[in-house]
Amino acid sequence: MLDELQIIDLFFEKSEVPVDDCAYLPETSQIITGDSMVENTHFRLDWHPPELLARKLFQSNLSDVAAGGGDPQWCLLQMGLPGNAEEQFLKRFAAAFREECKENRCKLIGGDTFRNTTYIFSLTMAGRVRRPLQRRAHPGDAIYMTGTAGLSLAGMKHLTGEMKLTGSLQKRALERHLAPVARLDLARKLREMPDLHGMMDLSDGLLQDLERFARAAGQRFHLHLHSIPCDDELLPLMPALERAISGEEYELVFCAPAGLQQAPGFDITQIGRVITGPPGLTVFEDSSEGKIVIPESRGFEHF
Amino acid sequence: MLDELQIIDLFFEKSEVPVDDCAYLPETSQIITGDSMVENTHFRLDWHPPELLARKLFQSNLSDVAAGGGDPQWCLLQMGLPGNAEEQFLKRFAAAFREECKENRCKLIGGDTFRNTTYIFSLTMAGRVRRPLQRRAHPGDAIYMTGTAGLSLAGMKHLTGEMKLTGSLQKRALERHLAPVARLDLARKLREMPDLHGMMDLSDGLLQDLERFARAAGQRFHLHLHSIPCDDELLPLMPALERAISGEEYELVFCAPAGLQQAPGFDITQIGRVITGPPGLTVFEDSSEGKIVIPESRGFEHF
Repeated sequence: MLDELQIIDLFFEKSEVPVDDCAYLPETSQIITGDSMVENTHFRLDWHPPELLARKLFQSNLSDVAAGGGDPQWCLLQMGLPGNAEEQFLKRFAAAFREECKENRCKLIGGDTFRNTTYIFSLTMAGRVRRPLQRRAHPGDAIYMTGTAGLSLAGMKHLTGEMKLTGSLQKRALERHLAPVARLDLARKLREMPDLHGMMDLSDGLLQDLERFARAAGQRFHLHLHSIPCDDELLPLMPALERAISGEEYELVFCAPAGLQQAPGFDITQIGRVITGPPGLTVFEDSSEGKIVIPESRGFEHF
Repeated sequence: MLDELQIIDLFFEKSEVPVDDCAYLPETSQIITGDSMVENTHFRLDWHPPELLARKLFQSNLSDVAAGGGDPQWCLLQMGLPGNAEEQFLKRFAAAFREECKENRCKLIGGDTFRNTTYIFSLTMAGRVRRPLQRRAHPGDAIYMTGTAGLSLAGMKHLTGEMKLTGSLQKRALERHLAPVARLDLARKLREMPDLHGMMDLSDGLLQDLERFARAAGQRFHLHLHSIPCDDELLPLMPALERAISGEEYELVFCAPAGLQQAPGFDITQIGRVITGPPGLTVFEDSSEGKIVIPESRGFEHF
């Protein structure tokens, strides 16, 4: 069986394989993205009430649009529904989805429904863009991320019983995993920085996402594990390498000259640097780059 | 369980429920459509080799774009693939899909793959449009269709064993059902007619499609069963009412003042007329409108 990248290769000429989650269309100054959520692959009905499913579907696509430098414009929803789909489930899903569209000024323009054994939600979203933010980086850049990493994985592990969280940490972890919010506001600030070279969103974990970013940019990325910012309470409970494989965080990762400072409402941390070298990712224990770490797993793959 | 129209209603304000298969976006002069094909709902792997699946997926979306007055611009493909999906199947599907894109100058801009128990192909397609052709009609208009209706249903019945076709009729029916071709060329001619009031494509059979057209246009449509054009050889084998429920024909249906003439390369037939009255469809045996027909079934519904 082919993996996702091999399948993508089948559909494109070598020179045209897309390297970004969003496609940039200069003709109409748009970026377009499409992301699906499939029952038992991406979500479980017993964990995800329909409201949260609708929000997560919307926000995961919005996150791509935000990271691409866009403002949401319209979306199109294709849904596979089982024969026993309940009216209440659909009503609640639709109401939450409409609210997301309204809050984010994104017009639902159409869609399609079809019968399937399980629920499938495929969304296509378009965003208006003045300056597309693609996966570019210059040697010498610092690699930054917004917010923290780890809470989403912790939330999932709490749900599966692998971790036992309590109190406000449990609440934050479950919220992050079940009801993530795209960093559209921060993306809007970042895209105004003239020397921001490239950006993407953190959806599959830093190890996978930075590897793709580095290859798309044609540069070598060095990740410093101990620099990955983490929720204070989670920090002692989750090894740095696990923070690096936590996906569905929907934080932003970007490359810009070193020296950016955190500030109120500008919640960023340097987690590595870009050097000249064969495209790809090297993982170091910390910013001294004294010890290379070879991860056993790159994290969860949905396909 | 809700039907498709009831589900659509959940997602839209009453005044905003889409009445066209394509959404028209004046801001970017585009129309957008999305259509899915699902194993065992829309296709069977033993009937549809991967090349034909790719072509049908592409052409069914292209047909929507053509009927909406557009020229294909880009598409985005979301695929659910079973764990045992064969490399050869995907290679053949991808090669045929790329060819469709190339022939029709439609750029594949991205997509998504996910695991599912069966194959699912969801395509979103955008088209450039100068004048969107929506489902409008004026009282007094004639209702026309291009080509013929019936071959697609005949092809399906041959495959299920309900009909036994031979020779060139068998070939034409199977081609129509398995490898339909959107009438983009004719749509391009038709959209230049200033008094063409509205157009759609024939995807679910005349009974269902004209009912929707009539409601969207807010007019009463009269369909004349015996006027529905049919393949000469198929004519004696298929009752007029069956031609009216044959879907996936991908012909064009449009409303314009009476008096249009068939001509070489302009293959059209009047099949009814538009009158003032409560929106909806009335089916008559023939153009004398002497006898109303009440169909037992509106045809096949995919959902």
